[in-house]
Amino acid sequence: MSVEQFSTKGRLADVGEGITGDELQLAARNHGMPLEALRYDLTPPGLHYVLVHYDIPMTSASNWRLTVDGCVEQPLSFGQTELRAMGRQTVRVTLECAGNGRANLHPRPISQPWLTEAVGTAEWTGVPLADLLQAAVLREDAVDVVFTGADHGYERGVEQDYQRGLSVAEAIDSGALIAWEMNGHPLPPQHGYPLRLVVPGWYGMASVKWLRSIEVIDHEFTGYQNAVAYRFRTEAHDAGEPVTRIEPRALLIPPGSPDFMSRHRFVAAGTITLRGRAWSGWAPIERVEVSVDAGATWQDAKLDAGSNDDLAWRSFEYDWDAGPGEHVLTVRAYDESGRVQPVEAPWNRGGFANNSAQRITVLVQ
Amino acid sequence: MSVEQFSTKGRLADVGEGITGDELQLAARNHGMPLEALRYDLTPPGLHYVLVHYDIPMTSASNWRLTVDGCVEQPLSFGQTELRAMGRQTVRVTLECAGNGRANLHPRPISQPWLTEAVGTAEWTGVPLADLLQAAVLREDAVDVVFTGADHGYERGVEQDYQRGLSVAEAIDSGALIAWEMNGHPLPPQHGYPLRLVVPGWYGMASVKWLRSIEVIDHEFTGYQNAVAYRFRTEAHDAGEPVTRIEPRALLIPPGSPDFMSRHRFVAAGTITLRGRAWSGWAPIERVEVSVDAGATWQDAKLDAGSNDDLAWRSFEYDWDAGPGEHVLTVRAYDESGRVQPVEAPWNRGGFANNSAQRITVLVQ
Repeated sequence: MSVEQFSTKGRLADVGEGITGDELQLAARNHGMPLEALRYDLTPPGLHYVLVHYDIPMTSASNWRLTVDGCVEQPLSFGQTELRAMGRQTVRVTLECAGNGRANLHPRPISQPWLTEAVGTAEWTGVPLADLLQAAVLREDAVDVVFTGADHGYERGVEQDYQRGLSVAEAIDSGALIAWEMNGHPLPPQHGYPLRLVVPGWYGMASVKWLRSIEVIDHEFTGYQNAVAYRFRTEAHDAGEPVTRIEPRALLIPPGSPDFMSRHRFVAAGTITLRGRAWSGWAPIERVEVSVDAGATWQDAKLDAGSNDDLAWRSFEYDWDAGPGEHVLTVRAYDESGRVQPVEAPWNRGGFANNSAQRITVLVQ
Repeated sequence: MSVEQFSTKGRLADVGEGITGDELQLAARNHGMPLEALRYDLTPPGLHYVLVHYDIPMTSASNWRLTVDGCVEQPLSFGQTELRAMGRQTVRVTLECAGNGRANLHPRPISQPWLTEAVGTAEWTGVPLADLLQAAVLREDAVDVVFTGADHGYERGVEQDYQRGLSVAEAIDSGALIAWEMNGHPLPPQHGYPLRLVVPGWYGMASVKWLRSIEVIDHEFTGYQNAVAYRFRTEAHDAGEPVTRIEPRALLIPPGSPDFMSRHRFVAAGTITLRGRAWSGWAPIERVEVSVDAGATWQDAKLDAGSNDDLAWRSFEYDWDAGPGEHVLTVRAYDESGRVQPVEAPWNRGGFANNSAQRITVLVQ
């Protein structure tokens, strides 16, 4: 058997094809945030979504080095203590997987099969990436910045360390951090211990975990995760546009009590305050609408006061006068850039950025 | 629509039927332990398996009460401070979901679709259950002890608080704890904050989370989770035997590097030290065998020295002289009670205790 047979090309599910064993393996290792955890401003340990492309690598803080080199005047190398001496900043960020919503698409791209729960909000502490690049002094020929993690594996036949690139402008202007703490504690292994990149507003693939190298290059980065994997394509051979920032999305905390298997909800009739969170990587949320009739009519939800954390989720609530019978709840977000969350997002072959509106089926008794 | 349509009876997958949307919803909320985390003696935060039947309830330690009543001379009620005054003990325990392995069965019972990763090891700190029962003074008519959590929902048409019963003898002799710490920290929400039961050696369903009531009753407990859900059955209408302690299992850390999608492994030829963990809820592990030819031949692995934690996993290793080509690795555990992990475990309708041997496909290059 060859590498090509072990690590095959991507494909779409056939009509009516159930979730495959390969998809289930990913769903069992990686995990979303149970939607009732939308109740927490900061997602508690172990509930923030996790996606690991290969394996969680075995890492140690004591001998970890982060290098900054390439098109810089002053190549740098940091141990943990040296890096902490460069500065310290904490920022609250909502991160979402670019593949969130993929498993609801038709046809379904075969990959990590997220429904709607690949999200979480944390306070990340570290040093601004811009400060490191300033210390290294970018040369005039600097074009892209390449981030390499310690995780290694194969993907669609290509052996690789996990790598992502940002343009110099994106690297400096995005407010990205090199983080060593999550919610005031050292990073857990699955979130990048001992160091990771966090790029606020961008889908999670940009926030390289187990970060060991920052290389500035004089040309556009054409590595697998930028040029092949995370692209919006409708046909397999399209060049496609890159996946970048998080599209607006609102999610309700499912009300009442669930059925174990179907996750349908049971609610007692009366006034029920529906609550949830909304976010966008492009701009602050400015409006959320709720529908209790499967999208036939929409009402404004009441947003919280907002905060300084423009790229963290914003909470909302809506009082629903719930009468007996079956209801489908749905919700959509608007941001200050003019982006509106669609009821049904356009399909793409990688299953990225599917921010189609959530649907919750409720039996009011 | 009625309750019965919202919360349906269990069923088996049809021949060739892929994982269903309902199963995927559970797989996306709950999660296993990525198998590379077998490298840690204690499973780090967020990597221990989690199964929540309904929703993670909203709980607060400050107003939490745990009551002990029923067939006792001295009914008791504890706040957090009062409970801590009753004693403090720490025990290292490997917990495994009773449904681990379910999704590998044919036909597949439709429920939480675990492969092999629903396991984890933690140090739990709390007060021995036996001490609480002694303080409450069991009456002579005491038969079973019923544990009720704060999680509420429907299952196969039955509305319920999550409840499990143990016999008085099991409750006292099992070494069960009422725990408030996991690995030295307050319980995370998904693991039962602020209080949970931990029953060493038993599958996880016995270890009731968000514990608020311990009731001693004068008859056998016939609640849903004991009498209906967790039973070994081959036909739907069998009474079935109860699911209790954890059957022996060994798991290898998958060697080398994975393919993202198939999780097949790539390894360089040469001597590779395979490592893993084995456990049983019945007795200490006394032997582990490894096969590098899909079970045709077996060799003894080298076990670690063992510890005082009889019901925590034990590590092992085996030096494999890996030659080029495709190999299937497998492993099996033996415990001191004489139980042997089967290469293929007998099928049952609930998909419980499927400890069939792990299989890892490796391409040696």
